Amino acid sequence: MVEDQSLSAIFHALSDPTRRAMLRDLAHAQRSVGELAAPFDMSLAAASKHIKVLERAGLVQREVQGRLHVCRLDAAPLHAGLEWMRHYERFWNQRLDALHALLRAEDRVATPASPAPVKPANKSSRRKG
Amino acid sequence: MVEDQSLSAIFHALSDPTRRAMLRDLAHAQRSVGELAAPFDMSLAAASKHIKVLERAGLVQREVQGRLHVCRLDAAPLHAGLEWMRHYERFWNQRLDALHALLRAEDRVATPASPAPVKPANKSSRRKG
Repeated sequence: MVEDQSLSAIFHALSDPTRRAMLRDLAHAQRSVGELAAPFDMSLAAASKHIKVLERAGLVQREVQGRLHVCRLDAAPLHAGLEWMRHYERFWNQRLDALHALLRAEDRVATPASPAPVKPANKSSRRKG
Repeated sequence: MVEDQSLSAIFHALSDPTRRAMLRDLAHAQRSVGELAAPFDMSLAAASKHIKVLERAGLVQREVQGRLHVCRLDAAPLHAGLEWMRHYERFWNQRLDALHALLRAEDRVATPASPAPVKPANKSSRRKG
């Protein structure tokens, strides 16, 4: 369930456009909380709330440097989310592969002794003359 | 902002373990709302709420067949989320590439006039013995 919880935290962190924009910003350089809040019309407290959600997901590391809280991106936890989504990409590709195999099998039935002719995969593309 | 909204809807849909389990289930076959609710200790109304979140993200299509509501997976919208995350994978890989380039530059300084020897990119893989 730990993996499930961290996946939930990662996807929850990414489900808000402000937090995604903060990650985009941090991909360029580390930022103070004030710098992260600056592009948005929000208080430091509101920005800090968003940053805490990113921290809980492990996507942001916050370091106290004197009076500044400096944030930097840690993209590593995104890999778990990426792997989860890739499973479905595979599943989707498998369905496309099955469709292609079906069309190839139809070709073999239509022309059993000759090489498969080059023709469009989508049968509905035949035009009426 | 439409893309931002749909990204938010996709990541929000994936941020709950019950909804992720429902998608896993739908990857095998289409299911009625009752079948989707069955593995969980929840009412049909609660399951229906989760399914509505998945529908809003475009990940589930619901079809009324007589008295049954039949759900099927549509993995296509996941691609937007996958692409968003891949951007950060690239960013992460770029940092690894920069590290490898630095190590190669060090090698060139160490052996300036001879062809580069074939050796593993990772210096720590040298074995003792």
